[in-house]
Amino acid sequence: MDVLSYRPDPSEFAWTFGGVPPVRTVRPGDILELWTEDAFGGKVRGPDDHVSRVIEFPFVNPQTGPFFVEGAEPGDTLAIHFISIEPSRDWAASCTVPLFGALTTTARTPLLHDPLPERVWIYEVDRDARTVGYHATEGDHTATLPLDPMHGTVGVAPAAFEARSSLVPDAHGGNMDTPEMRAGVTCYLGVNVEGALFSIGDGHCRQGEGETCGVAVEAAMDTVVVIDVVKGRPTPWPRLESDTHLMSTGSARPLEDAFRIAHADLVSWMGDEFGLETLDAYQLLTQVSESPVANVVDPNYTFLTKVRKEYLPRVDTYDGVHTRLRDTAVRYRG
Amino acid sequence: MDVLSYRPDPSEFAWTFGGVPPVRTVRPGDILELWTEDAFGGKVRGPDDHVSRVIEFPFVNPQTGPFFVEGAEPGDTLAIHFISIEPSRDWAASCTVPLFGALTTTARTPLLHDPLPERVWIYEVDRDARTVGYHATEGDHTATLPLDPMHGTVGVAPAAFEARSSLVPDAHGGNMDTPEMRAGVTCYLGVNVEGALFSIGDGHCRQGEGETCGVAVEAAMDTVVVIDVVKGRPTPWPRLESDTHLMSTGSARPLEDAFRIAHADLVSWMGDEFGLETLDAYQLLTQVSESPVANVVDPNYTFLTKVRKEYLPRVDTYDGVHTRLRDTAVRYRG
Amino acid sequence: MDVLSYRPDPSEFAWTFGGVPPVRTVRPGDILELWTEDAFGGKVRGPDDHVSRVIEFPFVNPQTGPFFVEGAEPGDTLAIHFISIEPSRDWAASCTVPLFGALTTTARTPLLHDPLPERVWIYEVDRDARTVGYHATEGDHTATLPLDPMHGTVGVAPAAFEARSSLVPDAHGGNMDTPEMRAGVTCYLGVNVEGALFSIGDGHCRQGEGETCGVAVEAAMDTVVVIDVVKGRPTPWPRLESDTHLMSTGSARPLEDAFRIAHADLVSWMGDEFGLETLDAYQLLTQVSESPVANVVDPNYTFLTKVRKEYLPRVDTYDGVHTRLRDTAVRYRG
Amino acid sequence: MDVLSYRPDPSEFAWTFGGVPPVRTVRPGDILELWTEDAFGGKVRGPDDHVSRVIEFPFVNPQTGPFFVEGAEPGDTLAIHFISIEPSRDWAASCTVPLFGALTTTARTPLLHDPLPERVWIYEVDRDARTVGYHATEGDHTATLPLDPMHGTVGVAPAAFEARSSLVPDAHGGNMDTPEMRAGVTCYLGVNVEGALFSIGDGHCRQGEGETCGVAVEAAMDTVVVIDVVKGRPTPWPRLESDTHLMSTGSARPLEDAFRIAHADLVSWMGDEFGLETLDAYQLLTQVSESPVANVVDPNYTFLTKVRKEYLPRVDTYDGVHTRLRDTAVRYRG
Repeated sequence: MDVLSYRPDPSEFAWTFGGVPPVRTVRPGDILELWTEDAFGGKVRGPDDHVSRVIEFPFVNPQTGPFFVEGAEPGDTLAIHFISIEPSRDWAASCTVPLFGALTTTARTPLLHDPLPERVWIYEVDRDARTVGYHATEGDHTATLPLDPMHGTVGVAPAAFEARSSLVPDAHGGNMDTPEMRAGVTCYLGVNVEGALFSIGDGHCRQGEGETCGVAVEAAMDTVVVIDVVKGRPTPWPRLESDTHLMSTGSARPLEDAFRIAHADLVSWMGDEFGLETLDAYQLLTQVSESPVANVVDPNYTFLTKVRKEYLPRVDTYDGVHTRLRDTAVRYRG
Repeated sequence: MDVLSYRPDPSEFAWTFGGVPPVRTVRPGDILELWTEDAFGGKVRGPDDHVSRVIEFPFVNPQTGPFFVEGAEPGDTLAIHFISIEPSRDWAASCTVPLFGALTTTARTPLLHDPLPERVWIYEVDRDARTVGYHATEGDHTATLPLDPMHGTVGVAPAAFEARSSLVPDAHGGNMDTPEMRAGVTCYLGVNVEGALFSIGDGHCRQGEGETCGVAVEAAMDTVVVIDVVKGRPTPWPRLESDTHLMSTGSARPLEDAFRIAHADLVSWMGDEFGLETLDAYQLLTQVSESPVANVVDPNYTFLTKVRKEYLPRVDTYDGVHTRLRDTAVRYRG
Repeated sequence: MDVLSYRPDPSEFAWTFGGVPPVRTVRPGDILELWTEDAFGGKVRGPDDHVSRVIEFPFVNPQTGPFFVEGAEPGDTLAIHFISIEPSRDWAASCTVPLFGALTTTARTPLLHDPLPERVWIYEVDRDARTVGYHATEGDHTATLPLDPMHGTVGVAPAAFEARSSLVPDAHGGNMDTPEMRAGVTCYLGVNVEGALFSIGDGHCRQGEGETCGVAVEAAMDTVVVIDVVKGRPTPWPRLESDTHLMSTGSARPLEDAFRIAHADLVSWMGDEFGLETLDAYQLLTQVSESPVANVVDPNYTFLTKVRKEYLPRVDTYDGVHTRLRDTAVRYRG
Repeated sequence: MDVLSYRPDPSEFAWTFGGVPPVRTVRPGDILELWTEDAFGGKVRGPDDHVSRVIEFPFVNPQTGPFFVEGAEPGDTLAIHFISIEPSRDWAASCTVPLFGALTTTARTPLLHDPLPERVWIYEVDRDARTVGYHATEGDHTATLPLDPMHGTVGVAPAAFEARSSLVPDAHGGNMDTPEMRAGVTCYLGVNVEGALFSIGDGHCRQGEGETCGVAVEAAMDTVVVIDVVKGRPTPWPRLESDTHLMSTGSARPLEDAFRIAHADLVSWMGDEFGLETLDAYQLLTQVSESPVANVVDPNYTFLTKVRKEYLPRVDTYDGVHTRLRDTAVRYRG
């Protein structure tokens, strides 16, 4: 069990998927203990830390990586199993960002209104109680919310010689912002370039489905992953597997196309590996899909759809890599 | 406790919201024991009962109603509390319908492909075990799925002198197809015409989020509701309340607009009745929203967003009508 | 040549397509001299006549009609040839309307911004010079624009027992707001109910493609049409024919679906009547289509696509009705 | 008048905007005589040259460039004036491409249909008669269409360290596929990186508005441009200027967002340089915009909106660079 610990210096952050040289080389089976900075580079710490003031575009959403995975080649699938995701500070931040969010004029839905006001919310993070604390900025309402840590951004270098901003989700993964990317889950990403070149970042203590204002409870994270490569097995869009569910994602606009991609991909997965004829898979998925929306704010919107494994034929999908990585996780935790 | 039992003759079905005279007059506080036929008028019963053969358009999705509610006037809100929703047969049907569904060319997304093939799936309904049984049409895969009965279609007469097909969801409710419309929930609908003129139909034994192929596990239902009117209280888009959650819906295309409507409505609800300032509500909802998509197949797509009441100030929303109707339900069940 | 002159009293306006009894019965071949009020009922006449003040919803966009056409039955096509469309006053009005337009938060794209301010622009109409005059409300810029009169709203009663607000464009026609609906053009509408029940309204002295702010140069019109019925010939979406072009429309959201409907319909028209194989028609249309967008503001957006007749095999489409009605127009004008 | 002639070797083609070193350095005022290969690398020459057979993804849509422009810095605007665009062969090609086009299932609108069949159309190009000849593949229909040469792809290196496939249009330009990019027009592109790094390619002998099947009349081109830099003047989205019109573009999905971007940009341009107050500009544009849709097939859809200069105050926009480059073009042609 090889364990690599890596905490990037701010000068080492990656701001794109693709177009960046690797920070480390790793091997299938390796465990990586990583630290990721929050999406604001740790610069939003109080009520006056407006993004328009403290962030210089495009230096937003720093990624830890990329990592070159030995033996990963185009046509393979990279499996990243999240052993643990833990906030590394006792506070986290959210805010409104001008021209960003689902309920405001944006750069891509430009209207003649002025931007909404900028405002910051600081959450206290109680790692023992597993909660985060919300405080209204006007009035005295507070709410104690469950801690449910996740990574908003997980991806590899894209195909077609592209380099994409860490704000963008697409077929290479990236800024999907799905609350399902939590500990215990294996993420499958199709490899587009030699070494896969994966990075992660954008930890959230929690977020609602859709990430409506565009900003979750953003936090630096101490995260442990174990990786593997499934050779000769392409994966067209990012997929996730938990002990109980298979999940497909789609990232596109309009939102119905993200929905279509995720559902068509899951129908195809149910067919290719579980032996269901296409219309039979379409029918079964229609009745059982759980479809939490991930984000409705990023340059592409992201949908995820889930199906319980118990409704499907018993098959070790992706050669059973999830189960093996799960076992590694147990051994790691000792 | 006045109880009205009503089982429509097929000649009494309504095919639109609006444009149809009432079948009965009821009063606030009345309990209605209703029977609703399935969306196919009970005509899809076996593998050869293709919709293109057994259904004559537009006679699809029959509604039970409309009911004239005494005292309901434009500007009021009709509250419909679902006491129980139970399948009235021991089977239910699903199928593919030409030019309908999320993963096919349709009348509104017309492409140059031929329609997908028509096929029927018949589910056995086990009311004691609370399950429905799926059987693949090719191969031998079967799955036993939880029974989770709901109404796809609940609505009132629309505004602006319109009459809308029972296939359409919009601000008047209608064919929203959300799995959240289950027993125990109160549905709030803004009243547009004197008497409100509400109808219900389109029972589903269960459905996945998105109703991907366009057809759920369709069933006739024995349904009991209790109704009330909240005077002088408009409701712009259909809302739901359960013991634990507030929920707003939006129906529109593209799907992101349905999302926006639901989320903007819930932000407004959190402001108007729970006293949260707009950006504070936007922030809180961003972190806690559960946003199951309802349908991505109907003439308008429907999104729903939910917030747990425990995260909000304690307020008796809509004058506490949900709690009162809940009590009535308990007394009714005796 | 039977000529009917009809000028509705305000009490006779129709506010929907469908759900309204006919004001007159007419026969194929009849010429109708009609007057249509402007979309604001003539109530926006000066800078303080804000729509929110002078219009009581839903009394907006009054229609002249409906007319019952003898012999028109479901499955037929109604042909309406516009002989002339002339402004009946020497002024016309435009304005901003709260929550309406392409570059503002709206009821269907609800954001957290306040509505844009209301403002009125009054245009002088010079019928001799064939111009309308624009005047900026702030600063002194003026522009003289060509008069190009058209009807924004032309439709029949919808299918499926529906009644639709005169603000809505859909398969029945309605509020398409295409600048191509000008004198010299024949509009084809599929008949859904006995008598077709067509109405027209919403005259514009001119509008840009897209009707960006939602309001054209709105004017009452003196309009002459001649009608005919093509028996046994359905028309799925409104079509137009001029001396030089065939045109198909589509009305839907998102806007790409409106585009798809119009283009798929024109491919189908080129196949059914002009004998082009589907992919050959698709290819030819790809290279020659002129595709002015009609509106990006109404409940459905409308696209139109045009193909020059000279690029197609010589065929008398719709049994040559356009040519015959054109001849009638010549005789009428004497 | 410095003239650079450049004809790339196939090994020199660029397949992305960004991420590629420059092939030449040029200076403001330089004239460039360029040759661009067609989008298929010249490999589609006959009926059996299906893209799936002759093209290896991602080697599609080769670009000539990039060119490093001395003195161009982020915050400046690059002006590219098209002096001439002439087909360099006497034939051109179009075809259907699997999973690409407006009326088919695609990678981003994935449905359960099989792809449409592949087919090729070869056009003869008559440079003297200024026509291209269409021939149906089934049946004997032919049509002679006007030659109207243009470049589908014109762009600079994107912002935020991105590299984008030459198939993608966005704020950096790229694969906009607008028929307005013809000789006589000046294209304005915001500079994101030192040297701007512009490329051009994807010549079309002509195309319809929307490029419906996804493939225009594709041709290699001999193209002459003259370039200039407007210092200290940012341009958020690509703009065009002809002798008669100002034009703004937007590239996004859904299509209404592309429309919004183009219209909001033109409103802003009319305000910033022509002194019109925002709502006055919105109103005027509403009545005069010509809005030809560019493409409804690429990863982002592109809209363009045009306003006649004669409707605006007389202003030398962009410091009059269009007029100066126009003069250079006259001198070049001698």
